[in-house]
Amino acid sequence: MKPSNLPSRIERLKTIQEASDLDAFLFTSASSIKWLSGYFYNFETGPSPFQLLPAALLIVPEKTMTLIIADNESLTTPIKGSEVSIVPYASYVFEKPLDHTHQFLSKLDEVLQENDLRQSRIGIEQCTIPHVVTGSIRINYPKNELVDISSQVTNLKMIKDPDEIEFIRAACNLCDIGQAVLLEHPLVGMTELELFTLVRSEMEASAGMRVPMMADMVSGQRTSTGGGNPTNKVIQKGDLILSDITPCLNGYWGDSCNTVAAGKATSQQLKTFTSVEKTLEMGIKAIRPGARAKEIDSIMRKNISGIPHHGGHGIGTMYHEEPRIVPYNDTILLPNMVIAIEPGIYEKDYGIRLEHLIVVTETGCDVLTKFQHCFEINN
Amino acid sequence: MKPSNLPSRIERLKTIQEASDLDAFLFTSASSIKWLSGYFYNFETGPSPFQLLPAALLIVPEKTMTLIIADNESLTTPIKGSEVSIVPYASYVFEKPLDHTHQFLSKLDEVLQENDLRQSRIGIEQCTIPHVVTGSIRINYPKNELVDISSQVTNLKMIKDPDEIEFIRAACNLCDIGQAVLLEHPLVGMTELELFTLVRSEMEASAGMRVPMMADMVSGQRTSTGGGNPTNKVIQKGDLILSDITPCLNGYWGDSCNTVAAGKATSQQLKTFTSVEKTLEMGIKAIRPGARAKEIDSIMRKNISGIPHHGGHGIGTMYHEEPRIVPYNDTILLPNMVIAIEPGIYEKDYGIRLEHLIVVTETGCDVLTKFQHCFEINN
Repeated sequence: MKPSNLPSRIERLKTIQEASDLDAFLFTSASSIKWLSGYFYNFETGPSPFQLLPAALLIVPEKTMTLIIADNESLTTPIKGSEVSIVPYASYVFEKPLDHTHQFLSKLDEVLQENDLRQSRIGIEQCTIPHVVTGSIRINYPKNELVDISSQVTNLKMIKDPDEIEFIRAACNLCDIGQAVLLEHPLVGMTELELFTLVRSEMEASAGMRVPMMADMVSGQRTSTGGGNPTNKVIQKGDLILSDITPCLNGYWGDSCNTVAAGKATSQQLKTFTSVEKTLEMGIKAIRPGARAKEIDSIMRKNISGIPHHGGHGIGTMYHEEPRIVPYNDTILLPNMVIAIEPGIYEKDYGIRLEHLIVVTETGCDVLTKFQHCFEINN
Repeated sequence: MKPSNLPSRIERLKTIQEASDLDAFLFTSASSIKWLSGYFYNFETGPSPFQLLPAALLIVPEKTMTLIIADNESLTTPIKGSEVSIVPYASYVFEKPLDHTHQFLSKLDEVLQENDLRQSRIGIEQCTIPHVVTGSIRINYPKNELVDISSQVTNLKMIKDPDEIEFIRAACNLCDIGQAVLLEHPLVGMTELELFTLVRSEMEASAGMRVPMMADMVSGQRTSTGGGNPTNKVIQKGDLILSDITPCLNGYWGDSCNTVAAGKATSQQLKTFTSVEKTLEMGIKAIRPGARAKEIDSIMRKNISGIPHHGGHGIGTMYHEEPRIVPYNDTILLPNMVIAIEPGIYEKDYGIRLEHLIVVTETGCDVLTKFQHCFEINN
C-alpha cells in the first residue's frame, strides 16, 4: 500500500481510527467493501449458497488492506493507488461437503494473526457482520475489542473521490439512455413490463452486461402512489408514465426520474408538470458549498406543499445515502457530495416526479444526468 | 396457529426443537423466512438502506409465529394453515433521521417479552443473524442461550410440502417459457444480451412481474467454460449456445439448461449432445425413493468421465440445496425431494450441458420442467 497515492476516503479513515482509538477495521457490508477496495459483489441473484459473506475487508491503516473473498468470485479492479492483498477461501466444491463458513473463518483467523491483531480494537459494521464471525473472533482472541463504526462510515461516504464521481457519472449515462427510450417509442398499447424491457435492454447493451436495477415504472392511476414495479398493465392513451430509473453499474448507483404523458396531457397535468419542473430547477439552483441540506429541501417544499417523501438524498455505493435532503438535516453541503433531487406532486388520479443527479462543485453544482425532462411526446 | 392444519415443515421443526432442547426459533435468512412464513423478500435490488434485515421470524412451537418486517414492505400471502402475526417496525421516514436498526431491535425485544423468552434456549441461524441482533439479546436477556441450528434446517428443507412443490412447478413453467424462446427465434446475429432480453421478457410477461433470475447465457468458445453472464458478443453461425435459466418466482427457484446449435452442428458436437442427453436420461431414470444421492451421481459419471461439477442438486428457497447429487453424498432419496440433474461435457472449444428439475415421488420421479432438449434448430 502506498499511502501517498491513496484516495482521500482511505486517508480519511484515520479520523475514525483516531476518534475511536482503533488498530484496524473489518468491513463486511458490500457497499463499504466496494467503496474501499473496488470489489463489487453483484447482489442481483441473492445470497450465494457457496459463500458466508459477499467478502470481508481488513484494513490496518498505513500497513495492509486484505480482501477475503470466495474463490469462485472474480475480482473487479481494485481502486487506484491501493495495494489490496486478495485472500481467497474455498467456496464451491463438489468432491466434498460445502464448508465455506469454516473456510472463511480460518482465513480470517490467519489474517488477524498475520497482522498481529490479538489484543486490539477493531472497528466493525455491526449490522452486516454475522454473529458467527464476531463469535469466532471472541473465542480465538478474547482480548480483541469490537467497536461499531457504522454511523461514522456513513458520514465519511458523503464526500466522493474523483474515481467515485466517474463511476456515478457512468451510471448516470445509463440513466440517460434509459430515459431516452420513453421518448423514442410509441407508448400507448405497450405494457409497463414491455416498456421496462426496452429501457433495461438499451441500458444493458450499453453497459455490455447485466445491470442490477431498481425501477418505478408505472402508468395511469398508479402514478398517484409515486411508484412501483412494472406489471402487465397496458398503457392507455392519456396515461401518465412515471419512470424512476436507478441502475447500479459496477457497484455505484445512478438515479433519475421523468414523467411523460402517453398522448395529450390535460391542462391541469401540464400545470402540475411545470410546477414540479420549476421546483426541481429551484432546488438545483440552491445547491452550493455552504448551503444546508434542509435549506434545499425547504426551498422545494415552499413551492410544492405536501411532498410525501424526501426532497432528495445522497447516493454512491447505496442508492440512498447521506446527506438526505430532508426537513431536519443540518448537514452543510461540501464539494464532491453527490445528491439526487426529486420533487413530486401526487394528485388523486395521477402523480408527477422529476429527478436529476447532481455533484456539488467548488462554486455551485453540476448536473450529472443529462437527459431533458419532457412531458408531452409525440406518440 | 392451528397445529392440525400446519404444513409438515412446521411440524417437523419439532425434531430440531427436541434434539437441541429449544424453547423457540429466531430465523433471519430470507430463505428460511420464505420457507416457513411465506414472506418473500426480493433481493434483486440489493440490501435496503431502510432495513436492518429482510425480516425476522420468531417461532414458539405450538404457540406463536411472529414476523417482524419493515413497515415499507408489502406482505406476500403467508402459508396456508398457519397464523403468522405481523409486527411492522418503522423503516423509511423523512421527517426525522432513519432509525430502523433501533426500531427493529425494540420490536424484537417486545416480541421476546410477550413470549416470555427471558431464560430460554433459542435456535438461531448464525451465518445470517447480525452481530447487533445477538448483542442486543445478550444485553437485554443475558440468561438466554443462542444455539445454531443452520445445518439441521438445511436437512429439514430437503423434503418439500405440497405447496412448495406448486411454487417450484410454477418456477419450472417459467423455465419452459424461457427455453422455448431459443427455439423460436433466429439466433445468428443476435447478441447474447439480446437473446437474454427476449428470454427474460417472455418469462416476466408470463409472471406479470419482474423475476429475479440467474442465467448462464453464453455462446461459442465460452460454452467450453460451462457458463457466465450474457454479453454483447454476437452469436455466429455454428456457435453453440448454453442457456441455463434459473428464475426465482415468489421465493422459489426453478432451474433448467439446454444447449443449442446456431446453424448446423458438427458431427462431433452432435455425438457429445447425444451422450449428455443419454446421461441425463439415465440419471433421471435412477431417481426413486431409496436410491442414494451418490448413486445417481455415479451413474452419470460412469457414462461421462470428468464432469467438472456436481451431477445435480436440491433446490427450493435457495437455488442450491441438499441433497447435493455428488460423489460423497450418502443421503437416501425420499418422496417430495426436488432435485436438478445437470450433466455436462466441456471440450476445448465448446461445452454442452442439459438439465431438468425433478420431484421424487412414492414410486419414482416426475420431471417438473416440461421443455424438450433440442440441439439443432432451424435458424
